[in-house]
Amino acid sequence: MRVLILGGDGYLGWPTAMAFSDRQHEVMVADNYLRRNLSRQHDVEPLWPVPNLLERVRVWKEVSGRTIHARIGDCCDYHFLADLFAEFQPEAVIHYAEQPSAPFSMLNHESARLTLNNNLQSTQNIAWAIHQHAPACHIVKLGTMGVYGTPNIDIEEGWLEIEHKGRKDSFLFPRQASSFYHTTKIQDTDMLWFYARTWGLRVTDLQQGPVYGLETDQTIQDDRLGTIFHYDELFGTVLNRFVVQSVVGYPLTVYGKGGQTRGYINIRDTIACVELAMLNPPDAGELNIYNQVTETFSVNELAEKVAKVGRQRGHAVEIRSIENPRVEKEEHYYNPTYSGLKELGLEPHYLTDAVLDRMFAVVEQHRDSIAEHKIFRGVQWK
Amino acid sequence: MRVLILGGDGYLGWPTAMAFSDRQHEVMVADNYLRRNLSRQHDVEPLWPVPNLLERVRVWKEVSGRTIHARIGDCCDYHFLADLFAEFQPEAVIHYAEQPSAPFSMLNHESARLTLNNNLQSTQNIAWAIHQHAPACHIVKLGTMGVYGTPNIDIEEGWLEIEHKGRKDSFLFPRQASSFYHTTKIQDTDMLWFYARTWGLRVTDLQQGPVYGLETDQTIQDDRLGTIFHYDELFGTVLNRFVVQSVVGYPLTVYGKGGQTRGYINIRDTIACVELAMLNPPDAGELNIYNQVTETFSVNELAEKVAKVGRQRGHAVEIRSIENPRVEKEEHYYNPTYSGLKELGLEPHYLTDAVLDRMFAVVEQHRDSIAEHKIFRGVQWK
Repeated sequence: MRVLILGGDGYLGWPTAMAFSDRQHEVMVADNYLRRNLSRQHDVEPLWPVPNLLERVRVWKEVSGRTIHARIGDCCDYHFLADLFAEFQPEAVIHYAEQPSAPFSMLNHESARLTLNNNLQSTQNIAWAIHQHAPACHIVKLGTMGVYGTPNIDIEEGWLEIEHKGRKDSFLFPRQASSFYHTTKIQDTDMLWFYARTWGLRVTDLQQGPVYGLETDQTIQDDRLGTIFHYDELFGTVLNRFVVQSVVGYPLTVYGKGGQTRGYINIRDTIACVELAMLNPPDAGELNIYNQVTETFSVNELAEKVAKVGRQRGHAVEIRSIENPRVEKEEHYYNPTYSGLKELGLEPHYLTDAVLDRMFAVVEQHRDSIAEHKIFRGVQWK
Repeated sequence: MRVLILGGDGYLGWPTAMAFSDRQHEVMVADNYLRRNLSRQHDVEPLWPVPNLLERVRVWKEVSGRTIHARIGDCCDYHFLADLFAEFQPEAVIHYAEQPSAPFSMLNHESARLTLNNNLQSTQNIAWAIHQHAPACHIVKLGTMGVYGTPNIDIEEGWLEIEHKGRKDSFLFPRQASSFYHTTKIQDTDMLWFYARTWGLRVTDLQQGPVYGLETDQTIQDDRLGTIFHYDELFGTVLNRFVVQSVVGYPLTVYGKGGQTRGYINIRDTIACVELAMLNPPDAGELNIYNQVTETFSVNELAEKVAKVGRQRGHAVEIRSIENPRVEKEEHYYNPTYSGLKELGLEPHYLTDAVLDRMFAVVEQHRDSIAEHKIFRGVQWK
């Protein structure tokens, strides 16, 4: 397929681009380096240096012989985006072009403003560009399980039939998120669902849990093809951070009671899910939603898993509960459904000791590059 | 109370300001003239000229002896807004500062972009300004019944207890709107609810139906105190437009089958509702939602009511069904609850023949100013 990957320079974007290129899709990536710029501004650059996107594309060509088209620009600039759609005529667009950090969105007014404007303007522009230039194009948007929060009922895959006073109707599953970033992902779904049913767009929303992992089949082919790997509070995901913290002897920071339960996914499965979703578009005017996780753990369970493997590798891993800087339930019911992607063919990579062991091995190679001051800054939700 | 009215120059904003001033509240209004500028750009200026906001405040002082403070500026400019809150220390803020037109939001990319950015940035700035400068201030936001769409279940006042697989929880009532503008009003509620429960803000959301009316107890005291009255497709509400169309012999334009049923409210009741809501704030961290309508009609019923009174006054009123330019159900179940504001003390003004008769009398005085080309432009949803 002809696929446009927006946010194609990111932690997920670049590995997705290479994997899709390997699988014979015709890939174009676009990025405005927002994540790189923010991480430089906030002094939380990634664990290893990464060439710029145009250089990555050249290296990929050298290593694989395959071409990935690349454009540098901002999806919030409608003319840039509309021109991409008009020129490339994608059959699918993968929308990773959002500010993805919950703590960043709670940092201050400016970071909240940026998160709002970037995430919703990019999404609106994609809907319009498709409506005007490529109406059959399937939007695959990366969402988050965080939109559901922690309701006291089972979480279905996006939709819920509600019976009320003897009458029935189907609705988007109720959503109530625990950060401003996650709230923008409620808002972008509402926006795409509106444009889908009004204009007949095809939309898939992938409600993903925290991703972990440092490697894919493509990143390991050359050092210069590695993904952007963050281990700081702003842009690092929890499991990735825990492995890094273990390696440098920084206590694993569990917020409050640590009973916060979430669904998790390996970066290899993210890529597989996105491709499966892309290859199974909904009808025009419909919105498919999948819950993109493969297993659930509490933060305590996650910390114990990391600590066990870390100790086996000789690290003195300490788990420390700190006062919760977030506003969230620390003990709660959590029972999400996540069968849709398996029904499409996903074969999950679970979080085994072997997977963790390999993560440790990679991080240990970069031990001298870990800057402890980047790990924690205690962004307060209040 | 000390009350800040954002969008204080508008159809509802200025009458609210005068009414609250009359009732001994200390009132500050702020506006950036967005509606005036857009209506000039789109050649749909109001039925009668209206002095600028600073002049209106001077006239009000002359007529009533009371002072309304006024500031010209944009709520999307955080520094302007934050300074207002820091200086005035409002106990309540009335948030009318949104782009209020569904057809305008569907006109083109630029109008959709403006609607998104204006409506959500203003709302986010209000939450932040309160959090940083006036944490006890009660936000009373004007919402719309349009957020609910036309579900096949009874519409409750904002919240719904859902039982699913033997477990229960309470959620925001499911919302699914039929224009992009209305979608931004789903998004602003989600945003305020997030900040309310995270920061302990007090928020009331008033889900209002289409408003009608030309006069309040204050506007009639001086010609220069009239509200901005639009009769065009972009900024005029349906009943106001129908009265104007009747007076100039322009057929009443019913979209499709005309079975679209909505809740309506008189502008006098809007002001009463907003004051009742303001005087009954929720606890910190809570979101009160009221459905702000007093009765429901289908478009066909509304057209018949206007036609009947119009004909009694000698107008040759024709009702004409045209192809629906919108994407919406033309026949549907509709049963909203709207008891909360009556329980707080609202005494509704219903849409009687006498009320319509008075509306006709006022519009007839301005008959020569009605520009027929402004009435209809057929903005297409598709």
